[in-house]
Amino acid sequence: MDRHSAADRSESLHSSSPAVVRRLIRDGHFAENTAGASAGFLQANLVVLPYQSAFDFLTFCQRNPKPCPLLAVGKRGDPSLPTLGDDIDIRTDVPRYRVFRDGNLVDEVSDIRDIWRDDLVTFAIGCSFSWEEALVDEGVPVRHVELGRNVSMYRTNVATEPAGAFAGDLVVSMRPLRPDHAIRAIQITSRFPLAHGAPVHFGDPEAIGITDLAKPDYGDAVEILDDEVPVFWACGVTPQVAILGAGLDFCVTHMPGCMLVTDVPSVRTAII
Amino acid sequence: MDRHSAADRSESLHSSSPAVVRRLIRDGHFAENTAGASAGFLQANLVVLPYQSAFDFLTFCQRNPKPCPLLAVGKRGDPSLPTLGDDIDIRTDVPRYRVFRDGNLVDEVSDIRDIWRDDLVTFAIGCSFSWEEALVDEGVPVRHVELGRNVSMYRTNVATEPAGAFAGDLVVSMRPLRPDHAIRAIQITSRFPLAHGAPVHFGDPEAIGITDLAKPDYGDAVEILDDEVPVFWACGVTPQVAILGAGLDFCVTHMPGCMLVTDVPSVRTAII
Repeated sequence: MDRHSAADRSESLHSSSPAVVRRLIRDGHFAENTAGASAGFLQANLVVLPYQSAFDFLTFCQRNPKPCPLLAVGKRGDPSLPTLGDDIDIRTDVPRYRVFRDGNLVDEVSDIRDIWRDDLVTFAIGCSFSWEEALVDEGVPVRHVELGRNVSMYRTNVATEPAGAFAGDLVVSMRPLRPDHAIRAIQITSRFPLAHGAPVHFGDPEAIGITDLAKPDYGDAVEILDDEVPVFWACGVTPQVAILGAGLDFCVTHMPGCMLVTDVPSVRTAII
Repeated sequence: MDRHSAADRSESLHSSSPAVVRRLIRDGHFAENTAGASAGFLQANLVVLPYQSAFDFLTFCQRNPKPCPLLAVGKRGDPSLPTLGDDIDIRTDVPRYRVFRDGNLVDEVSDIRDIWRDDLVTFAIGCSFSWEEALVDEGVPVRHVELGRNVSMYRTNVATEPAGAFAGDLVVSMRPLRPDHAIRAIQITSRFPLAHGAPVHFGDPEAIGITDLAKPDYGDAVEILDDEVPVFWACGVTPQVAILGAGLDFCVTHMPGCMLVTDVPSVRTAII
């Protein structure tokens, strides 16, 4: 996507309400990443799994609040999340889903109504897209949004705290920033613990087991300029690594970067 | 307790390490409230209940993060909480316990080893005692600690967000403060979301359903001076109201004010 079409997309989605973006997604008109969409509203990572594993997964989230800050937990068998939006149907309102069976990724789809089950529990986990508008408002540029790309995400060698069968390494998102912008970004994102809060690392990628920033494990690569450092935030794709390891018979997540856009203004969750 | 003995107690417990305080409790030498003990360390409210209700209770905590910020969730049947202290045995390390059966409070004891079960799950919930030292350090006096008393706690008419069978009104703790101190206390406690964070109300007690500040539902009363306002924080006794309503066959909590003292320095959990 060149800068011109990126700007077009940015203009339309950026200022659209969450309800409008969800309707576009639900009606099959939008199945891409949601970076920059409905600027200023909470976006959410998705995990849907059987009730039998729900306590262990909720405990995994409690033990790993940086990658897994919980925005909402659905009722067993219920695809709504009323605290995040009146009309949300989690089976249709995410642009792309990943379906896991017996610990393997088996499918990527845009609708999960046909595979929904009465024993499924939905977890909505905070997402760093939620505070990117706050960075821009304070003069901190966000390159992947400027370019109309998905954010760069990487698997690290930093272990999460296990719970039941859930365990695995942390996934991070990365934004290249000048040091002065990085300092401001640390201050701003500290205010948003429900969207991963402050970064977990900056500088040397190999210190957290990332060998090549040009080859993200999820999302798109972006250029890092000479006067910039990579800054890393815990990422809500982390559960997808834990799920692979847990070998669940069935599980659904979002496709990394293709988030649930909620009706909750991000600032409403800000600490101080 | 007069001011002299309060000062004595304050001196000994205030500067004792959490491990020493837990040993005193475990050995039966201390069975009172822990206000002011091991200043600067996280203290925790306790809920112990059967695994069958654990997912619903964990969801209740997720939906009510102000009264129920989770510090740790134990493994099924396991009375240790290693992330809060190497030697913690939750069956002996709390000064006083309350035992609930069939939705009624039936006993208050100082040890629960004889009623422990293999299906029990432990929840440690943050406590406002954790930041009282931070207030004192910044020149904000805390009257109940000065007087060697338990904090004043009240049931309100503010409903929590239900989860499963868990529902009920919010419980708050109250500290009388001058407005300038209240403003500073709002700033300071905002840094500690795992210890209830910023207050939920100040001023008129009737606005949240409290009719007589001189008669707290839990803990001790303290005087409110003419130039002071009552300031109210969400309290980790809230689950005890929810538990009464849920009618669990079995459940154990701490006695309000008689907390688990952990090895975690409070500042280590501070946001910004």
